[in-house]
Amino acid sequence: MSELRPVFYVSDGTGITAETIGHSLLTQFAGMRFQTDRLSFVDDGEKARDAADRIRRTGERMGARPIVVSSCVDPALSALIAESGALMLDVFAPFIEPLERELGEQRQSRVGQAHGLVDFDTYHRRINAMNFALTHDDGMAVNYDEADVILVAVSRAGKTPTCVYLALHYGIRAANYPLTDGDLETDRLPARLRPYRRKLFALTIDPERLHQIRQERRPNSGYAKMETCKREVAAAEAMFQVERLPTLSTTNKSIEEISSKVLSTLGLQREMY
Amino acid sequence: MSELRPVFYVSDGTGITAETIGHSLLTQFAGMRFQTDRLSFVDDGEKARDAADRIRRTGERMGARPIVVSSCVDPALSALIAESGALMLDVFAPFIEPLERELGEQRQSRVGQAHGLVDFDTYHRRINAMNFALTHDDGMAVNYDEADVILVAVSRAGKTPTCVYLALHYGIRAANYPLTDGDLETDRLPARLRPYRRKLFALTIDPERLHQIRQERRPNSGYAKMETCKREVAAAEAMFQVERLPTLSTTNKSIEEISSKVLSTLGLQREMY
Repeated sequence: MSELRPVFYVSDGTGITAETIGHSLLTQFAGMRFQTDRLSFVDDGEKARDAADRIRRTGERMGARPIVVSSCVDPALSALIAESGALMLDVFAPFIEPLERELGEQRQSRVGQAHGLVDFDTYHRRINAMNFALTHDDGMAVNYDEADVILVAVSRAGKTPTCVYLALHYGIRAANYPLTDGDLETDRLPARLRPYRRKLFALTIDPERLHQIRQERRPNSGYAKMETCKREVAAAEAMFQVERLPTLSTTNKSIEEISSKVLSTLGLQREMY
Repeated sequence: MSELRPVFYVSDGTGITAETIGHSLLTQFAGMRFQTDRLSFVDDGEKARDAADRIRRTGERMGARPIVVSSCVDPALSALIAESGALMLDVFAPFIEPLERELGEQRQSRVGQAHGLVDFDTYHRRINAMNFALTHDDGMAVNYDEADVILVAVSRAGKTPTCVYLALHYGIRAANYPLTDGDLETDRLPARLRPYRRKLFALTIDPERLHQIRQERRPNSGYAKMETCKREVAAAEAMFQVERLPTLSTTNKSIEEISSKVLSTLGLQREMY
């Protein structure tokens, strides 16, 4: 077994940027084991010294040199953190100089900026999109006219988390259409969906996995039965094929990956929040 | 007015890492204007050549050299994309060599890894946390015993998006407690919350902003009135102070920042998904 390495995501703000890139980097070293810690809002000298102390002590206790993935914008804070003796990976440093040269402008080192202050409009778009996703979940109170995308699938194939993610991160108004037994009796689109063909994206799933998910939700119900799952998935996939809907299997996919595929397939270009 | 620069987030996977760091970098050049585009799942030579074409043509059309923020792991794909003539910023490259040296291991260049395949347990934890947030939203069907955190605030102060974000990104079981008129008649905690003191986190908001948000939701209602907002916020803040609850004002804060503060204040250490 390989040694356990302490990793610290250190930031003057939320640390989301540091953690996102740090996590991506670490997954490329699959043979190693990491213990990760987040130190957010390290935005003055005292907090930076406290952070350095904690990092150094953790390294001593674990007998392994810590790795710091830092997004602190102020070089003075970075220098204090580096006194911990950790390997310092500054996620912005390598890109600032080439960008300054290319843009002919100096960067402004405002602290904690990326995920910090927001204007009312931005906040509102996200919240409205999220409220839309929550009130249009599983076809309860549906107004498909206002939807940017409508996810079509059998129950528990991944529609709700994908809708919420699209709303929260892209301000996309995403609605659900859960296929019912009645819908699955034919291989044609339900009449209610036909006017919205260009907004439709179909999700499917391995019947074994669906069975596993439904079983956790409603153990030993008819709904969770392997037989039911097989039948529903086969009927849904037949419909998606006949109607030529863009279709993605969610089995083993992350919510991020499903959401990205929906956006790129339907050509929805929104900035990520 | 400064020129408009085309920026492309290019990735062999979802592009979330490239877009997260790219966005953080661009916010440090506040004087510039950028037009951003996402090119996800660029995972073979043909797609890389198509991407390079599109990038080059956009630059020509806009009369400005494009900037590419790339998280493609395969150097051959990066080389093809670089033929677009764009300024190439590879988000992994600067960190791989120091990490390889530190860890004594070569990175494995699996494509699209960070936000790609996931195991069942991980997926399930996220989904369960999200279902928890959705069913415990605004005190509907509440089981606070199972909650990791309970957000306390008046209606529309930011509880729901924060709960959903905490669930989706950290697998945190976050519940809501919306303060009612009855609760606000005293400055003591509602009896139902008292057993859970260590899980409580209070949100407050500028009354003007609350008025603006409620006004959009239920125009000209008593609920949205400036007077009501002022009274509710003052009463809630008095309670938070008397009860010494950790409190954050959500005015002008992003969902990410609110969520990060909740985690760091309550000492909740979870890895980000």
